[in-house]
Amino acid sequence: MLAAETERLTRVGRETPMGELVRRFWIPFLQVADLSEPDGAPVRVTLLGEKLVAFRDSGGRIGLIDRLCAHRCADLFFGRNEENGLRCTYHGWKYDVEGKCVDMPTEDAASTFKDRIRLTSYPVQERAGVLWTYMGPRAQTPELPEFEWMRVPEDHRFTSWSFQENNFVQGIDGGIDTVHSVYLHSTLDSHRDLNAWQEQGKSQGDARQVHRVRSNPPKLFATDTDFGLMIGGKYRGKEGTDYWRCNLFFLPFYTMPPGQPWRKIAHAFVPLDDENTARWCFSWTLERPFTAKEMAEMRAGSGINVQLVPGTHYPVRNMANDYLIDREEQKTLTFTGIKGIGEQDFSVQEGMGRIADRAREHLGSSDVGIIAMRKRLLKAAADLQEGVVPSAASHGSLYHVRAGEVVLPSDAKWDQDERMRQVMTAKW
Amino acid sequence: MLAAETERLTRVGRETPMGELVRRFWIPFLQVADLSEPDGAPVRVTLLGEKLVAFRDSGGRIGLIDRLCAHRCADLFFGRNEENGLRCTYHGWKYDVEGKCVDMPTEDAASTFKDRIRLTSYPVQERAGVLWTYMGPRAQTPELPEFEWMRVPEDHRFTSWSFQENNFVQGIDGGIDTVHSVYLHSTLDSHRDLNAWQEQGKSQGDARQVHRVRSNPPKLFATDTDFGLMIGGKYRGKEGTDYWRCNLFFLPFYTMPPGQPWRKIAHAFVPLDDENTARWCFSWTLERPFTAKEMAEMRAGSGINVQLVPGTHYPVRNMANDYLIDREEQKTLTFTGIKGIGEQDFSVQEGMGRIADRAREHLGSSDVGIIAMRKRLLKAAADLQEGVVPSAASHGSLYHVRAGEVVLPSDAKWDQDERMRQVMTAKW
Amino acid sequence: MLAAETERLTRVGRETPMGELVRRFWIPFLQVADLSEPDGAPVRVTLLGEKLVAFRDSGGRIGLIDRLCAHRCADLFFGRNEENGLRCTYHGWKYDVEGKCVDMPTEDAASTFKDRIRLTSYPVQERAGVLWTYMGPRAQTPELPEFEWMRVPEDHRFTSWSFQENNFVQGIDGGIDTVHSVYLHSTLDSHRDLNAWQEQGKSQGDARQVHRVRSNPPKLFATDTDFGLMIGGKYRGKEGTDYWRCNLFFLPFYTMPPGQPWRKIAHAFVPLDDENTARWCFSWTLERPFTAKEMAEMRAGSGINVQLVPGTHYPVRNMANDYLIDREEQKTLTFTGIKGIGEQDFSVQEGMGRIADRAREHLGSSDVGIIAMRKRLLKAAADLQEGVVPSAASHGSLYHVRAGEVVLPSDAKWDQDERMRQVMTAKW
Repeated sequence: MLAAETERLTRVGRETPMGELVRRFWIPFLQVADLSEPDGAPVRVTLLGEKLVAFRDSGGRIGLIDRLCAHRCADLFFGRNEENGLRCTYHGWKYDVEGKCVDMPTEDAASTFKDRIRLTSYPVQERAGVLWTYMGPRAQTPELPEFEWMRVPEDHRFTSWSFQENNFVQGIDGGIDTVHSVYLHSTLDSHRDLNAWQEQGKSQGDARQVHRVRSNPPKLFATDTDFGLMIGGKYRGKEGTDYWRCNLFFLPFYTMPPGQPWRKIAHAFVPLDDENTARWCFSWTLERPFTAKEMAEMRAGSGINVQLVPGTHYPVRNMANDYLIDREEQKTLTFTGIKGIGEQDFSVQEGMGRIADRAREHLGSSDVGIIAMRKRLLKAAADLQEGVVPSAASHGSLYHVRAGEVVLPSDAKWDQDERMRQVMTAKW
Repeated sequence: MLAAETERLTRVGRETPMGELVRRFWIPFLQVADLSEPDGAPVRVTLLGEKLVAFRDSGGRIGLIDRLCAHRCADLFFGRNEENGLRCTYHGWKYDVEGKCVDMPTEDAASTFKDRIRLTSYPVQERAGVLWTYMGPRAQTPELPEFEWMRVPEDHRFTSWSFQENNFVQGIDGGIDTVHSVYLHSTLDSHRDLNAWQEQGKSQGDARQVHRVRSNPPKLFATDTDFGLMIGGKYRGKEGTDYWRCNLFFLPFYTMPPGQPWRKIAHAFVPLDDENTARWCFSWTLERPFTAKEMAEMRAGSGINVQLVPGTHYPVRNMANDYLIDREEQKTLTFTGIKGIGEQDFSVQEGMGRIADRAREHLGSSDVGIIAMRKRLLKAAADLQEGVVPSAASHGSLYHVRAGEVVLPSDAKWDQDERMRQVMTAKW
Repeated sequence: MLAAETERLTRVGRETPMGELVRRFWIPFLQVADLSEPDGAPVRVTLLGEKLVAFRDSGGRIGLIDRLCAHRCADLFFGRNEENGLRCTYHGWKYDVEGKCVDMPTEDAASTFKDRIRLTSYPVQERAGVLWTYMGPRAQTPELPEFEWMRVPEDHRFTSWSFQENNFVQGIDGGIDTVHSVYLHSTLDSHRDLNAWQEQGKSQGDARQVHRVRSNPPKLFATDTDFGLMIGGKYRGKEGTDYWRCNLFFLPFYTMPPGQPWRKIAHAFVPLDDENTARWCFSWTLERPFTAKEMAEMRAGSGINVQLVPGTHYPVRNMANDYLIDREEQKTLTFTGIKGIGEQDFSVQEGMGRIADRAREHLGSSDVGIIAMRKRLLKAAADLQEGVVPSAASHGSLYHVRAGEVVLPSDAKWDQDERMRQVMTAKW
């Protein structure tokens, strides 16, 4: 990939092609739990390179506004969150959740100066335990995506996020990558030869086990959709059949792997700036609530979640401490010696550097999905420059699909087959 | 303010307009206590972007010279301070307090090489517990300012300084800001409505209380003086009268608020480089010495002083730890939840970033003083480029004034009134 | 020295003149002990600005290859070192010690894609407890230097290295500097006046003591050799004689001082990048093995070695902690108050800044060797640009010399005298 293309793909500042594209969608920026208390402490938020501060006012409404006061640039993070507004500690200018200056006690009561003062502010919605904002033109406000995890009962859902120290596209690259699981996330006694596996009776009657062995690498296919991309991995199955895994990429930064029949997962890789990302994890169950034990384990970092320094969104195992890699464990038990699926992902995604030099890559047949996703993003950004807003932005219902897996006859068209379509239909 | 103006206002390197202006004045750079012992440890000093080292020689004289040895650039901070000179540890070259190389043992005794070696050095004066230096042209050496705090007996005076992580003008902006105290430095039960306050009898007979309530914001005026600027805050007083507070700005970086009748205060904001400042605090009493308890409290950070990491000039409560803000205290007791007047100032001044982007400001009627001060500085810098040295530099007696407060008839001319003049007259 | 010359002298990236010169020689990059275990943990190596990873494969062979996987840039430091290759944890691509991709499980078995994938790799030799690599054109692979310390029995030798936070030429500057020892590395009661010293009988019958007093500074001479440079320090000796100390500089980054009759020392200053160096210390005995006590003391940082944070190559006493300078000790016992010869060297070499500004230097008669060394390096780099490879690169035997000291008649030609030649002859 040429340097100029990497540049277009990864930069998210205002007036960059990709930055403008992302600004056309609702963006998750905090969990409700991060900002739950009316008149509680403001929270620093950086999104797409813009420094903002979020606060919940007395009435429970949420403001996401410029971090610096319009008067003399004092940091509103230190502001007083009081009586339906955030008041600057320097001279008492006060802003409501829309960024309007609603009190300016340094001026005469008769002054109209305050009416001309308005901080940049972005609209906020609370949905499914998440705070969403929209940073694009108001006249073209999009719809929230209608992800299945946003509709299940609250006790069917678990959400977390953490800071990730690299550009967001590296996260997406990994999130739609069908193949890496049997390496990065594997143990040493898994993924052995398919025949041996079957002889042991492990996959008897379970066609999906064929993707669990490394000796059966998939062929990859990608199909553009309105929401983004279907990425199909075709694994050799029983005679005359193929086992298909379908990963999804949703504009502008969501990924969804097939997950398990009873528990689904998805990610968002939200660009905080060019070199930092918020990695979101969404887990949800289809048939029963999560148990208290499952919830507690996810809070502690199990599954796709990472272990966080308590009270923060910073990972305990990170680049600075080599993810606490245990070389003995790497020799004897797991492929990486690093604990945690999320942390394993970080070790490769952050390990590439803040913005990976894609000119060094050598993409192969397993990278069909990655190539297609990058093209999709670049195309959408180029289209927007021509004035064409992605339809996904204004059609939340497009997001109401699941990733999935299915066994199909060898002559089936995977991306049009009714069986695949059924598997992909979200129920909630 | 245009970016180019901010640039001129804030940059202090050699050959910048503001850097040259500041170089025309004596500059406080250490306390005597920081460098008290003859032949004691040298101290790193950075001033106006220049890296220097200070040492006190065997005879008690103080040198302030280039930090790197003229020979092969070894760091003289590690030097041996011995027998009237600082000796480089690398090859033994030795410098006196004037930067002259007085011993060069690596050369033949007959060599005259050493006579040609002289490090940049700046003259130093000790006065009032402070070490002062002058970094401008020797032929035009200015006078020391004759501040009142420099003339009171030693036990009437307390001085401290700390590192501040922003450009010096942000410090001055705050130092002359009459209005911010009733916000930034207030408690929640102070500054209530003036009528209620008076009904409680709190300000009965005390005209100055009118500035203590937020509902009575002042009108601001600024008048150029030879030393800098008088900034008058006019508060509505009893019928037919105004209560005036007069803050002073002294070229090139001093500020003085009215203080209290028995205890006065002043600041210097000394530019260490473009992005770092030494914030100096001068407190002095007029009628009696500070008590031991008062001294101990100021050493611990009370008043305008900040709490320092012992043995250093680094604040305990700083940007990296959010000034240990206590959000519960902010809700229930104080306006900021941050302990310490100095630390409260830092939270707004450092919070703006190293060099505040003044293009984002919206200055109002309460910023008359700030606007005038910036103009005064820029004008003085421009004049100097035309060859005009500020008269304040060569007339230390101009600094022999106090900030003050006075009640005047409504038709009085505040800045020419005899009563104001009297209040402003320094006694010591 | 002009800025442009400093630039040529110090920059070591690919295609810089100096970078290309250093690439024509074998380079020590790790101790064998740093990478001793087959299939053990890979080690990050940075050399000449190139980010590499070293690993020892199952057969004991050592690979030094690009740090990032050719596929999608994952960091091979986290790789699995298994069955004769380093396997990327992301998708299982596996590399042998020559950087060849030997397994690419993500592709079809029939694919020839993997045959086209080869990471940059550099050949490695193990010799004398050190791992050496060569980063230049393969067709002109040089010979290993045949230093005496590489040939003595293992128990006659001690090697260590540490990170040094400055450009490598500052290290060489110090390594060949005859004069600085009587300052930087001295105690206060050493190096007194020569007459007093002799009167005390300390140097009776020991001609070499004359260089131990500061009042007898040497005259310096430098002579180009095939391996680099002889730097002679001539000290006034008994009537009609001179005492000569001869320091050696070997292309491209080795230095050797005279040492002691029974114990010799040498350094390599290996450029990790423009601003970081690995400082190597080689100590060896000529007549008997080091004792266990001597070995233990050197491991703890005695002699030219530095005290390392256990399990790392980072110095305990470093710039960030002012080398734990003890000002009382500097006043009363040692010239610097810093413990350790290596740490004393660091305090001056790192103290100059990452790349010393040589435009500020004032070189004198004691700097003849430094001047000659810089010229030698710049000349060799310029010659290489004309296609002339230094003969030292292809003649390892040129390195089979010792630094030394000798008393010569005043009319002797020091650099051609048979007595000097004999002293310089390596025995092992």
